[in-house]
Amino acid sequence: MSLPTTIHVVLPAWLPAAVDLSRSFASDEDKMRLAIDLSRQNVDARTGGPFGAAVFGPDDRLVAVGVNAVVAQATSIAHAETMALTLAQQAERRPRLNRGADDRPCGPYTLAASSQPCCQCYGATVWAGIDRLLIGARTEDVAALTSFDEGPLPADWMGELHRRGIEVVRDVCRDEAAVVLRSYTALGGARY
Amino acid sequence: MSLPTTIHVVLPAWLPAAVDLSRSFASDEDKMRLAIDLSRQNVDARTGGPFGAAVFGPDDRLVAVGVNAVVAQATSIAHAETMALTLAQQAERRPRLNRGADDRPCGPYTLAASSQPCCQCYGATVWAGIDRLLIGARTEDVAALTSFDEGPLPADWMGELHRRGIEVVRDVCRDEAAVVLRSYTALGGARY
Repeated sequence: MSLPTTIHVVLPAWLPAAVDLSRSFASDEDKMRLAIDLSRQNVDARTGGPFGAAVFGPDDRLVAVGVNAVVAQATSIAHAETMALTLAQQAERRPRLNRGADDRPCGPYTLAASSQPCCQCYGATVWAGIDRLLIGARTEDVAALTSFDEGPLPADWMGELHRRGIEVVRDVCRDEAAVVLRSYTALGGARY
Repeated sequence: MSLPTTIHVVLPAWLPAAVDLSRSFASDEDKMRLAIDLSRQNVDARTGGPFGAAVFGPDDRLVAVGVNAVVAQATSIAHAETMALTLAQQAERRPRLNRGADDRPCGPYTLAASSQPCCQCYGATVWAGIDRLLIGARTEDVAALTSFDEGPLPADWMGELHRRGIEVVRDVCRDEAAVVLRSYTALGGARY
């Protein structure tokens, strides 16, 4: 027996071609609609749960995207937000997106998540070096419309992010995000 | 520009040879001492923060190990616990370690962490499919002995794990774990 040494996680094969890189992502709604588009396409392609995310850098540049790929990748960290954040960090070659060489600020970075991050993605968001978190559907929408569990969070989860310099904007295109959650359940989607 | 599609994270090169696979990991202390050994060697090799972790399957079989590799891998999820859990899942080819085909229980799986998991690894622990969490140093030790921030947790973080079927055992070789934390700071270790 030898110990495993390498983690490997890939996005679904359909994904790169599904993103129109010429689109503008200037507004919060533009950014969120990409995350929601990805959540819908992940459901349509049957590649995972109804969750999408995207990371944007300074000048609203799209840096990376993610979708839920837990079952396909046999990896419980392969949630949309964690995928997008990690891909962004590896593309930018730094573990805290908004801190460059010599700890120099180099943001702002924004994470758009089609649903409120679960307990795991919440923790990942704390360390990833983002300045803004945009949330589509709320945790109560996820609970009401799907069988997914979002897990335990600090009571004042938004305040904890604010105190760490992360602005939180909720209910961005909330209804559009909820439509995808509902469609996943209507299709009899598995929990993951 | 094209979007990044693949996440790649590797353990430090010294690590596989540093684990004696013939050792017995029968007791909680045996398991924890491996996690603490790895935390110490990560400090000595200057490959990351003073944190180690290991995952054990049924019959106390060692499945995977991890150390903090955040800076070397430019990846903020590359904490010891998340590395060990993800490597274990990919080795076992399932995203929930203690659930096999048809959701059949196939544990117990144990995670030994040289220090209490931070907010991110806490969330990862909720979903990873482990039955037992062994903790060496407490969060208050990490705060007192290093400059690492463990992040915001639910007030009743242990109760939340218990309610999800995860037994938590604290203070396993706590003093030995604290020695490594102290040595990292004495060496002037960077925060990551």
